[in-house]
Amino acid sequence: MASERLKAFSDGVLAIIITIMVLDLKAPQGASFAALWPLWPTFVAYVLSFVYVGIYWNNHHHLFVIVEKVNGGVLWANIHLLFWLSLLPFVTAWASESRFARDPVALYGAVLLGAAIAYSILVMALLRAQGGRTLLHEAIGRDVKGWISIAAYVLGIAGAFLHPWIGGLFYVAVAAMWLVPDRRIESRLNEL
Amino acid sequence: MASERLKAFSDGVLAIIITIMVLDLKAPQGASFAALWPLWPTFVAYVLSFVYVGIYWNNHHHLFVIVEKVNGGVLWANIHLLFWLSLLPFVTAWASESRFARDPVALYGAVLLGAAIAYSILVMALLRAQGGRTLLHEAIGRDVKGWISIAAYVLGIAGAFLHPWIGGLFYVAVAAMWLVPDRRIESRLNEL
Amino acid sequence: MASERLKAFSDGVLAIIITIMVLDLKAPQGASFAALWPLWPTFVAYVLSFVYVGIYWNNHHHLFVIVEKVNGGVLWANIHLLFWLSLLPFVTAWASESRFARDPVALYGAVLLGAAIAYSILVMALLRAQGGRTLLHEAIGRDVKGWISIAAYVLGIAGAFLHPWIGGLFYVAVAAMWLVPDRRIESRLNEL
Amino acid sequence: MASERLKAFSDGVLAIIITIMVLDLKAPQGASFAALWPLWPTFVAYVLSFVYVGIYWNNHHHLFVIVEKVNGGVLWANIHLLFWLSLLPFVTAWASESRFARDPVALYGAVLLGAAIAYSILVMALLRAQGGRTLLHEAIGRDVKGWISIAAYVLGIAGAFLHPWIGGLFYVAVAAMWLVPDRRIESRLNEL
Repeated sequence: MASERLKAFSDGVLAIIITIMVLDLKAPQGASFAALWPLWPTFVAYVLSFVYVGIYWNNHHHLFVIVEKVNGGVLWANIHLLFWLSLLPFVTAWASESRFARDPVALYGAVLLGAAIAYSILVMALLRAQGGRTLLHEAIGRDVKGWISIAAYVLGIAGAFLHPWIGGLFYVAVAAMWLVPDRRIESRLNEL
Repeated sequence: MASERLKAFSDGVLAIIITIMVLDLKAPQGASFAALWPLWPTFVAYVLSFVYVGIYWNNHHHLFVIVEKVNGGVLWANIHLLFWLSLLPFVTAWASESRFARDPVALYGAVLLGAAIAYSILVMALLRAQGGRTLLHEAIGRDVKGWISIAAYVLGIAGAFLHPWIGGLFYVAVAAMWLVPDRRIESRLNEL
Repeated sequence: MASERLKAFSDGVLAIIITIMVLDLKAPQGASFAALWPLWPTFVAYVLSFVYVGIYWNNHHHLFVIVEKVNGGVLWANIHLLFWLSLLPFVTAWASESRFARDPVALYGAVLLGAAIAYSILVMALLRAQGGRTLLHEAIGRDVKGWISIAAYVLGIAGAFLHPWIGGLFYVAVAAMWLVPDRRIESRLNEL
Repeated sequence: MASERLKAFSDGVLAIIITIMVLDLKAPQGASFAALWPLWPTFVAYVLSFVYVGIYWNNHHHLFVIVEKVNGGVLWANIHLLFWLSLLPFVTAWASESRFARDPVALYGAVLLGAAIAYSILVMALLRAQGGRTLLHEAIGRDVKGWISIAAYVLGIAGAFLHPWIGGLFYVAVAAMWLVPDRRIESRLNEL
């Protein structure tokens, strides 16, 4: 089976997830810039979640550029990934409405962790679907960045119980790792 | 007519249906994990409906992989299917907000039944549009799984009037039947 | 320019319009079928608007099957059509929440009229963009159905001021005319 | 990398942005045309933002018609543009709910300015990705219209502090400049 519809459906779901989160940015009552101030947690959480959905779309895009074949297992592994990402608007809203309290920040990390694991499962399903050693195997390599992310989410969740900002720091760091294309680090990581 | 836009439009509608249901998962007032507890019916209903939309997308995907021609009748049969699925967010919300009361659970099953019948009509419209015996006829076969689903929905609706959980059990069982790709059962069913 | 993105964007907008209208179908407070009763105007309006968006998608699909070239004018004529259709959720909500009062029903017709005129403008922009006599000219013919629709919307709006149901009757009749593919009538109309 | 998914994802996000803004057009309490009157700021802001998203879609469409290659930098430059546009529903709601007060109108302009700068960054990323002098370089030229827009947004934001309507006038003027395809002006601008 070709991957056209898998890509189209994923693009649709990710486009909706990234966009409906802005619905939580409700226009404030007042009409002055000062009235915007209480919105800062919502805005900060929106930016972080927007970046995360952007990262997932970007990685998903790169992943399927070099994929030829998909099967039923890949379709479901993909829907499983979309499920975790679909929870992002919910945990984003809870984290910001609680002004980054301990439990919501930990749950935010748990959803990121779920999505990261689901992404790894998707990659494994794709590798199995291709059969034999392919370009995909080489491109994925040992996926050091993926494992670092998963470890960082776990540390972030644990850290959130010490102080929510520790959790947030880990989540921001992982996003930055994916966002900043420091080519030296990137090639080093790929060489490992 | 080619089926490109039918697929794109269906992907769009299904992507939106699967995603807007998460809007009913509203961030709780409290900031502790305990505050999440009252959300369990919403979460359970969300997961079940998410899986159902995933199943429909998956089946729709498989169906149109081997379809060459569509006509006006197929387009409307497809829109008819999307109509029933578009009611899923509504019945999901009612079922979970009533904490799975009798009537909402029965109506949930009725919408699943409507979607299943609409899917059968779509398949028939497609078979007619192809003309002659084609790959599609062979792939569909006697569609035992489809008939079992319809029967299970009817039983589930009836069962909901005895106790809502009986209805829920039937709906979960049908989803599991489509989800778990037990190849032995699958080939047996296809052989029938 | 190819029409791929025009189709994709239109599919996206129409998919969202057809789906977000269901958000107005809010789960009732009660948990019995009786609690559904007050929702009938919302449901009836939802079905009618769903059918109308379906008709527009269907006609748009047919229109662009035989179109080769688009230009800037066509892109804007298309966005203009999407603008009118984007108002459908608003007038649907007003018509149903007012339980089909006079003014909302008239406004509903005005939006349908605006969409119909926008569709005609789109067809004219497409004819101009093709240049010379093409397949599109023949397929469109004198567009009798289009003109009947516009006349019916005008009558419907006027009729709504006598009694809302007269307006509603006209809108349902136009939808039925597009929906029921009575081939004899269809060929007669095309012959004119 | 091909630009198919970048286009599909952008179409999806823009389709959702352009459509969810209508959710702010809430059905009025009353059932007479008079009850519509208080909605005029919402409607006016909706039309302006709809036109702006239409302009961005249109320009994005034209831009990628002649683009062959995209890379990681282009993907992120595109997501950055979508981020600014995703804030449009928020500032549209604030501007209209405040009935076009000073600060909201200035912020509306700031989001337009952010989107315009993001668009310029996207164009630069695309030019770099193509390498060498290509069709794109010629088509973009010195991008006079882009620079006029940015200047007009800055003037509009500054003007909003004198009187909100001055800001609004600038924003409407820029939209009109992109919308009205006065070919003489257009070719003059391109010649510069």
